Amino acid sequence: MEYLVDLGKRAKSAATALSLLGQEQKNEGLQAVANALVANMERILKANEVDVARAVEKGVKESLVDRLRLTEDRIKGMSEGLLQVASLQDPIGEVTGMTLRPNGLQIGMKRVPLGVIGIIYESRPNVTADAFGLCFKTSNAVILKGGSDAINSNLEIVAVIQEALASVGLPQDAIQLIEKTDREVVKQFMKMNDYVDVLIPRGGAGLIKAVVETATIPVIETGTGNCHVYVDQHADLEMALSIIENAKTQRTGVCNAMESLVVHSAVANEFLPKLYDYLKGYGIEYRGDARACAAVKEFEPATEEDFYTEFLDLIMSVKVVDSIEEAIAHINEHSTSHSEAIITNDYAASQKFLQEVDSAAVYVNASTRFTDGFEFGFGAEIGISTQKLHARGPMGLLALTTTKYIIYGNGQIRK
Amino acid sequence: MEYLVDLGKRAKSAATALSLLGQEQKNEGLQAVANALVANMERILKANEVDVARAVEKGVKESLVDRLRLTEDRIKGMSEGLLQVASLQDPIGEVTGMTLRPNGLQIGMKRVPLGVIGIIYESRPNVTADAFGLCFKTSNAVILKGGSDAINSNLEIVAVIQEALASVGLPQDAIQLIEKTDREVVKQFMKMNDYVDVLIPRGGAGLIKAVVETATIPVIETGTGNCHVYVDQHADLEMALSIIENAKTQRTGVCNAMESLVVHSAVANEFLPKLYDYLKGYGIEYRGDARACAAVKEFEPATEEDFYTEFLDLIMSVKVVDSIEEAIAHINEHSTSHSEAIITNDYAASQKFLQEVDSAAVYVNASTRFTDGFEFGFGAEIGISTQKLHARGPMGLLALTTTKYIIYGNGQIRK
Repeated sequence: MEYLVDLGKRAKSAATALSLLGQEQKNEGLQAVANALVANMERILKANEVDVARAVEKGVKESLVDRLRLTEDRIKGMSEGLLQVASLQDPIGEVTGMTLRPNGLQIGMKRVPLGVIGIIYESRPNVTADAFGLCFKTSNAVILKGGSDAINSNLEIVAVIQEALASVGLPQDAIQLIEKTDREVVKQFMKMNDYVDVLIPRGGAGLIKAVVETATIPVIETGTGNCHVYVDQHADLEMALSIIENAKTQRTGVCNAMESLVVHSAVANEFLPKLYDYLKGYGIEYRGDARACAAVKEFEPATEEDFYTEFLDLIMSVKVVDSIEEAIAHINEHSTSHSEAIITNDYAASQKFLQEVDSAAVYVNASTRFTDGFEFGFGAEIGISTQKLHARGPMGLLALTTTKYIIYGNGQIRK
Repeated sequence: MEYLVDLGKRAKSAATALSLLGQEQKNEGLQAVANALVANMERILKANEVDVARAVEKGVKESLVDRLRLTEDRIKGMSEGLLQVASLQDPIGEVTGMTLRPNGLQIGMKRVPLGVIGIIYESRPNVTADAFGLCFKTSNAVILKGGSDAINSNLEIVAVIQEALASVGLPQDAIQLIEKTDREVVKQFMKMNDYVDVLIPRGGAGLIKAVVETATIPVIETGTGNCHVYVDQHADLEMALSIIENAKTQRTGVCNAMESLVVHSAVANEFLPKLYDYLKGYGIEYRGDARACAAVKEFEPATEEDFYTEFLDLIMSVKVVDSIEEAIAHINEHSTSHSEAIITNDYAASQKFLQEVDSAAVYVNASTRFTDGFEFGFGAEIGISTQKLHARGPMGLLALTTTKYIIYGNGQIRK
């Protein structure tokens, strides 16, 4: 606990210093760190080799080892990411809506940093640099807790960042890593309300659930996506094929990939066999309700659980409905409120779907794969919020800020 | 638990229905409820008498009994409050920032209800109608948990509201009251993430702390205010007297009342005796540091704890500092980040204070008592947030909403 309180105090003090920096100083810092990552590539790769070797030895599956692995290109990518963040507009300091009240008070809302941000993530070491860049650009100090299998890589990356900050006279404690990875320390960390303003978990559903249940610090939930595509009776079926192919197969392991297909019964018997043929090459496993299975004999029966599941794999649940109302009710019941799409040429259906589906991003005639800070034009992304407080959907720099009211008076008292 | 799940399901279903209502229907509902409260005044007063009699019998102190007591005027006030909310602009449905992406997608941000709001409060039964009004206007369903000493009043008010809603064909479950007041039920309620989107505790520091520590549902912390006034060396001392009188004495039991005075050492020996004389009639107890006590012999020595305390009473802590930097550091360390004011005629000092004090509302030359939704021009207030996520400072209708992205495409897929 003493260890964490020390981290917390350092972070708070760094946050105060960061809040006083101008944009030019911050961008200079980002530039210095971007250069240092490339200049210290060997050091970082060497530390990463230790982590990778240990993971291979432990028999971790190749897709996870791949997430852990750094290469020259990946480190260059981290460096370029920081330069890109440096080039973005800094939201801090803007004052909006300054109004003059009848009593002469001038009240405005000023955009300010959150303060200290805690980020808990899994094994991708590039998150270390990405998260730092976004937090630093918005004048926030960050305390990182990465996965234990990436500890050597993370330690080295953080050391390089801290050295680079110090070299241009900026506070090193703008980024700190929790080096002790046992569970009790992490649990305590999630309750440090006096030192940490917000906690952002990045990772799988299990990690996020654990954080939501344990933390007393305000949490921004990110990322789980049981995304639906609904093929309406008035859909352009060719468009539906192409959008489903993209949403399901372009990248299967990401949160905005499609997991569940909902089809209107008026087109199910025509569309489902067509879809099955169209996507044959991908080896997708379909889990359908009774009518879906009747339409395509290769489909397997779905359990109720399947309709709640984010597969992150070449598996798709399929539900046949008799109306758009039934489709919307099914989606609102089973989705994780991430991204959903309707394929239709019917005006009323499109408006109804946009209005009534209760998710962070609701699409008409487009792939759910677009739910992403870069695709939305934010230039950066710290995660995709699936909760309703503070930020919903892709979170860019603005999501890492808050506001305060500033009030100019000349002696006003309340009557 | 079954009891709570039933409440939760009803609330979710009401929230869906409410999200489809137009502004005219919602205002009609508010009008019907406003009328019903006045028409059923006798019923409500009778139920309230039971609560008041029980409180008096239990020896509850008069200031608390007064909070519990309803009168004809107070019920009329509740009714008028609802009409006022009806007259406010409805924020729901507005779409902002619709942009056209290079790939032809149109992406906009639509303002939507939060869904189901849980409000946990203490003994003031008028909160029951106030909270309903704000939630209903923003198409949210609300589940209320009031203090056990107000249970009869709350049951009757909720019954009157539900009858009024039903009489105009609106969903009764837009408002529900948790009738079981034992602690275990309340604890369970705070963990109903599947049914409740946000929890707002309204009450004293103890209640708020308990909710923050127990809830897994996202919480908006409200209300505790250890508010500071800093009298700078370049202050207009007459203005300082009038502002401190107002901030400290106009209402002592409220969160935006001043609790702590910070004075620059260059003016402390002149100002503190002046202040003591000026406020003599109020019987204020002063708890000062060594230099403050040296300036006024009637001051008592403060403990470190006193500087962290929200007295909500005629008690004031007093700290003497040697610089504005020391004042700001003292305030940021001890305040609850609610409202703080500087009294100064120095331009640089005013700007520095606005920039560096990390609170929801920061004032130059005005009383902290203005931190209030009505004074800020919001026309209504659900509470004052002292946390940084989602809403900070006085929360009006906007704080009870969230957004979703709506995206219009014509077949776009991600490359």
